[in-house]
Amino acid sequence: MTLKLYYDLMSQPSRSLYILLKVSKCDFEPKFIDLRKGEHYSNEYAKINRFQKVPVIDHNGFVLSESVAILRYLSGENLIPPSLYPKDNQIRARVDEFLEWHHIEFRLHLSMYFRVKHMDPIITGIPPNPKTLKGYERRLISALETFESQWLKNGNEFITGNNITVADLFAASELEQPRMAGYNPAERFLRIGSWWKNVREHFSPYYDEGHVILNKIVNKQKQQSSKL
Amino acid sequence: MTLKLYYDLMSQPSRSLYILLKVSKCDFEPKFIDLRKGEHYSNEYAKINRFQKVPVIDHNGFVLSESVAILRYLSGENLIPPSLYPKDNQIRARVDEFLEWHHIEFRLHLSMYFRVKHMDPIITGIPPNPKTLKGYERRLISALETFESQWLKNGNEFITGNNITVADLFAASELEQPRMAGYNPAERFLRIGSWWKNVREHFSPYYDEGHVILNKIVNKQKQQSSKL
Repeated sequence: MTLKLYYDLMSQPSRSLYILLKVSKCDFEPKFIDLRKGEHYSNEYAKINRFQKVPVIDHNGFVLSESVAILRYLSGENLIPPSLYPKDNQIRARVDEFLEWHHIEFRLHLSMYFRVKHMDPIITGIPPNPKTLKGYERRLISALETFESQWLKNGNEFITGNNITVADLFAASELEQPRMAGYNPAERFLRIGSWWKNVREHFSPYYDEGHVILNKIVNKQKQQSSKL
Repeated sequence: MTLKLYYDLMSQPSRSLYILLKVSKCDFEPKFIDLRKGEHYSNEYAKINRFQKVPVIDHNGFVLSESVAILRYLSGENLIPPSLYPKDNQIRARVDEFLEWHHIEFRLHLSMYFRVKHMDPIITGIPPNPKTLKGYERRLISALETFESQWLKNGNEFITGNNITVADLFAASELEQPRMAGYNPAERFLRIGSWWKNVREHFSPYYDEGHVILNKIVNKQKQQSSKL
């Protein structure tokens, strides 16, 4: 059995799968694709993933993209613990419900804020238009409000109940992204903060390992801001 | 066994599930939620779906939102044919890969074009800003180009190979949406057109039944345009 994971820890779903494979004690070959060097745009990588994105897996020659599809495939191969992606049809459906909801209602707004405020200015050298950025910030905050009020409901420790699942891991990785753009969701959303701490602890030490580069960027920015 | 489907045939994923349940000869109680009358915003409906969207199912008291999660749940209950959502892990992963990809890369752009060009002017009485609309049209066309070149590849009859699956049904329902805004993807994208015809025929007569209201709107608009 050979399993390769093409990833960059700058990418939220790459981090989710990296941490998931590590916590599952799954033997895999990490294949780092440096997004900041544009390695995903190379002809060589296009042969692996025609969409030129990460993450991708290659499992004995079967190449698959899309993190949620990959997670489901790995579960079907019994490579991840059923506790994290339950086999019971109703319990699994609740995890799926979050994972499907999260694409447009959550991930999109968190990653767009990161892109417009942090990435685009690095690439173009042009600072974001304040009015445009305000719109992205409003949508970011609205997504966080919905996440906190609808998914982290009183009485439940985790997204789908009192057991931690991949839904929590995927959500947590997405939440890290705006931190690189100077916005820490935990500061304004206290229930997100306490849930997030539990998720980090549950997936320790792999959660920190998956976020080591991200945390370096966050700390570097904090130091720069404090000098201003 | 009681299965209720809360739906409006104006909604793409509602149509996908409606047609899927019909073609699966699944006995269900259709519960029409009139989006144009804002019935999804009622307190009564909020008790069923806290996100106040359609589609939703209620299966013996188990209430679930998100069309892709619903499809998977129904498959787990053996309520839809395995041919449409295969049990084989690798074949299913290819269907999942499309369903996960389609949220942000496909559905978002097709539905936003429909919303900005057709729905928002009806609600607000204000015609769309031409420059704004041009941006949405560019993203719509780019999504259609990617769909045709990457998913409808030469040699394959359907999205994941030579067998039709729910991936084709979900994609076809999304493609219908911009038609209501006066844009027919089949006119510019010929491979989409021929594939689409096959999908419609395969799910006949339920495909047309699911699109009867949509087709009425499209025809009414054509008549109005021809009078101008």
